[in-house]
Amino acid sequence: MEYSLRILGSGSAKPSVDRFQTCQILEMRERQFLIDCGEGAQTRLRQYNSRTSRLNHIFISHLHGDHCLGLVGLLSTFGMLGRMNDLVIHSHPLLEKILGEQIRFFAVECHFRIFFEPFNPDVSEIIYEDKAVTVRTLPLKHTVPTCGFLFEEKPLSRHINKEMVDAFNVPIAYYKDLKEGKDFITPDGEIVSNRRLTIEPSERKRMAYMSDTAYSERNLRWIEGVDLLYHESTYLSDVDKVKLKTRMHSSAAQAAQIAYMAGAKKLVLGHYSSSYKSSQPFQDEARKIFPESYAANDGDTFEF
Amino acid sequence: MEYSLRILGSGSAKPSVDRFQTCQILEMRERQFLIDCGEGAQTRLRQYNSRTSRLNHIFISHLHGDHCLGLVGLLSTFGMLGRMNDLVIHSHPLLEKILGEQIRFFAVECHFRIFFEPFNPDVSEIIYEDKAVTVRTLPLKHTVPTCGFLFEEKPLSRHINKEMVDAFNVPIAYYKDLKEGKDFITPDGEIVSNRRLTIEPSERKRMAYMSDTAYSERNLRWIEGVDLLYHESTYLSDVDKVKLKTRMHSSAAQAAQIAYMAGAKKLVLGHYSSSYKSSQPFQDEARKIFPESYAANDGDTFEF
Repeated sequence: MEYSLRILGSGSAKPSVDRFQTCQILEMRERQFLIDCGEGAQTRLRQYNSRTSRLNHIFISHLHGDHCLGLVGLLSTFGMLGRMNDLVIHSHPLLEKILGEQIRFFAVECHFRIFFEPFNPDVSEIIYEDKAVTVRTLPLKHTVPTCGFLFEEKPLSRHINKEMVDAFNVPIAYYKDLKEGKDFITPDGEIVSNRRLTIEPSERKRMAYMSDTAYSERNLRWIEGVDLLYHESTYLSDVDKVKLKTRMHSSAAQAAQIAYMAGAKKLVLGHYSSSYKSSQPFQDEARKIFPESYAANDGDTFEF
Repeated sequence: MEYSLRILGSGSAKPSVDRFQTCQILEMRERQFLIDCGEGAQTRLRQYNSRTSRLNHIFISHLHGDHCLGLVGLLSTFGMLGRMNDLVIHSHPLLEKILGEQIRFFAVECHFRIFFEPFNPDVSEIIYEDKAVTVRTLPLKHTVPTCGFLFEEKPLSRHINKEMVDAFNVPIAYYKDLKEGKDFITPDGEIVSNRRLTIEPSERKRMAYMSDTAYSERNLRWIEGVDLLYHESTYLSDVDKVKLKTRMHSSAAQAAQIAYMAGAKKLVLGHYSSSYKSSQPFQDEARKIFPESYAANDGDTFEF
């Protein structure tokens, strides 16, 4: 699965019989990203037989226990399993202060280095970038500073049409220009349109993760048209309005409303309150507003 | 179940598909004790529908992650669930230093107080006592300072035989002496033997928990005749001898040997290495030496 989001935990803070706390593993071609890391993340990785050899970056949305208390156990186990690659944890600046003592103590056998990369939860900015992918923070509205994340491939360059460049005798030195969309001018001064020499690149993929948040349209501009939108939906719409407001969470309908307004291709729901027995009503509620809604359960994988 | 040990996690450090890390809940009449607290303990408590209203003391055998990384999540959840009773954590002195920062951060909503009661892991001593029960540390042989625990009821006083004390007109003021085993002397100077006036008390119950340890006979004197002995058995006997020695764990046969020499009534095995698929071979191996051996799986309850 080249592009997929696997749900390791679809529950929220209070323990539930069949849901672990929030954790997801995102695959984007040869990259893996762990998004949040609730208690038991390492157990789920083992249960679902998920390999983590390409996992080098972990993104923590906020400092509530159900989103980060699985980190120490996971790092300690990585150490026992002989991991050698460095690992970067992107989070609120306080995380290192809170977990640092434990990590230093329990991850003594680690042969890899752990780097904390703090981000400012008040602004939207790019906090990760490699040659093909960027990750942007999306400040949310929660009881503590919280960010969602937008994972997106960079615009892809056009592909060379080998048959055509050979027919026009285009020198290799011009390929770079062609990939960027430039036309080719022959030695005789004839202009050969770029469209004749190159092929449309495949569409770049984008996935947005909206962690714990009250309803907010603040990030719509960033997540417009995303291939996959994960949005928390702790409650159903019939929840007590005061509860929804003071706890600063979203209902399934509100998550669907955001997906609809953003023009997302697919919506995945999760982070249900343990007071609900099934995720089905969440899916039903969301689909009335946004038909491509899916209520996740632990272990589900969503391709995009 | 007046006296029982419930296994919340029968695995060891590396994650396994169907076993959580070490954690047990011990019931002794109206008391509950949590013994070790691996990651996911709160989830298991929920899954097994275990009530914790009488749980006020947690005993941590040593500071390896698989024995204590479930503490912060558990305490934080207790806070969310509205717990009011103080909670005491008995452990190596370092635990407070390592977890203190996290607990203060994540258990902000707690309306109960958390006390750390450090013990010296080098000596055997009573670290808990109430009117009916004591808990004694049992220093073990492991790669870090580690203690097992002996939970035992105090010797029970004899019961008054109501019919007989009435027949001999024993004044109520003498009952205390009778319960302690003293004879009664009538106003005429006649000696009435205590055995005629009282009834044997029911036997006091004793349970010993031998956490991570290499084979050691050091604590035999304390655990002689225990009703239930939990002893770790990370490996089977055919494990590489160097591994058994350097990691300082026990085989099922070694655990059975200790149970046999102690004259225990029942042996429970756990803490299996994740490299084994089933607990059955552990039980088979132990029963060759000690027939009353039981290999625990998560969720099992052992009465005694």
